[in-house]
Amino acid sequence: MKRAKVRIYVEHPLGEGQSVTLARDQARYLFSVMRLAVGDLVAVFNGSDGEWEAEIATAGKRDGILKCRVQSAAQRNPPDLWLLFAPIKKARTDFIVEKAAEMGAARIMPVRTEFTAAERIRRDRLQVHAIEAARQCGGTSVPRVEEMSALTRILEAWPEDRRLMFCDETLAGKGAALSGAPGPWAILIGPEGGFSAAERRMIDAMPQSVTVSLGPRVLRADTAAVAAMTVWQASLGDWK
Amino acid sequence: MKRAKVRIYVEHPLGEGQSVTLARDQARYLFSVMRLAVGDLVAVFNGSDGEWEAEIATAGKRDGILKCRVQSAAQRNPPDLWLLFAPIKKARTDFIVEKAAEMGAARIMPVRTEFTAAERIRRDRLQVHAIEAARQCGGTSVPRVEEMSALTRILEAWPEDRRLMFCDETLAGKGAALSGAPGPWAILIGPEGGFSAAERRMIDAMPQSVTVSLGPRVLRADTAAVAAMTVWQASLGDWK
Repeated sequence: MKRAKVRIYVEHPLGEGQSVTLARDQARYLFSVMRLAVGDLVAVFNGSDGEWEAEIATAGKRDGILKCRVQSAAQRNPPDLWLLFAPIKKARTDFIVEKAAEMGAARIMPVRTEFTAAERIRRDRLQVHAIEAARQCGGTSVPRVEEMSALTRILEAWPEDRRLMFCDETLAGKGAALSGAPGPWAILIGPEGGFSAAERRMIDAMPQSVTVSLGPRVLRADTAAVAAMTVWQASLGDWK
Repeated sequence: MKRAKVRIYVEHPLGEGQSVTLARDQARYLFSVMRLAVGDLVAVFNGSDGEWEAEIATAGKRDGILKCRVQSAAQRNPPDLWLLFAPIKKARTDFIVEKAAEMGAARIMPVRTEFTAAERIRRDRLQVHAIEAARQCGGTSVPRVEEMSALTRILEAWPEDRRLMFCDETLAGKGAALSGAPGPWAILIGPEGGFSAAERRMIDAMPQSVTVSLGPRVLRADTAAVAAMTVWQASLGDWK
């Protein structure tokens, strides 16, 4: 029996014997692009039921049905980690979302800061990007991408029990190493223009905040995001 | 006195009172693009003499002279860390070179492996990319980008005292945490198609090699490069 070589994301419950109706673009991808046919196997995941090996039961030009056979990977959720960052350029924002999915963030929160032009984001497009990254990296969960909100508004309502790992690029080399306990955390990546004095005071005053150094060089926001998630995952997350 | 807001890289010795003749594209950048004029300050670095504050002494359409005044940052060389990776797509290769400069690698070595199509790289273009990343991140050193070589040839002549941190994406979640002593190190990032059995045997047989896990998800090569350099810098490098 051939193993599934193609992996797709579906918005459909998965379980033994479950039939999954394909959307038009999925049918086109599987049958026209990947040239799969009835009887071939496909790996499917939906972000909550693990990964399933599914057999192609019917295959049309614009539709098709998969039948789940066996679970090929148990559902594995990443630690309860949020990533907050200020979107600047579209390509770098896409990159940060992709990296957050690979690195196992649970929630991606674009934030508006005082020194970042209020560039608009398209949440739906970024969510698709996160799904695609999860599909490629073999993840069974997909981080949720939120709408952009003002940083100050998010911090005003910050959960009491969630620590905030604060990575400020203007502090390059001056912060401390990460310390703290596992549990709910968030990472806040500073915008390339830095934070305003008011934002900084607000963050410093939060008992949940922990300022962390990412070395002596000033990192771009996208590099800082990967580096910060690495530091967190390696010491408090699921890399141990 | 105004502080220098513009930072450029020059291939010229720097020191007190030193005059630096600008190349045509540098003159165009400073005087036409950035609209600087005689008397304005520019930060300059050359990868070996630290960063200097220089005053614009003459400014023409196609030429100009800077005069070094004071050293604004001492030369700071990154730890003796090499980054070996197998180039795949141009955009991702550019990205890895940029990230290696930001993260403080000393030497960037593109390698050809058995499972990577022998894509050609343009060393000169990648070196310019590394300089630009160093310029932007405030670094005073620039990693040297080497010509692409076969991985097996590099490993055959591997220095006895240089440890090799081996990050194989196909081992996701199965390796160990980084351990070892500071000193000369290199990071080897696996190509997205993985290593051949022969390559793997060769690496495993090296007493210098240390297999390291980058968590339970399979990372893309560019993500793995940043994550691996973070793990190394945070535990053995200059982030401490």
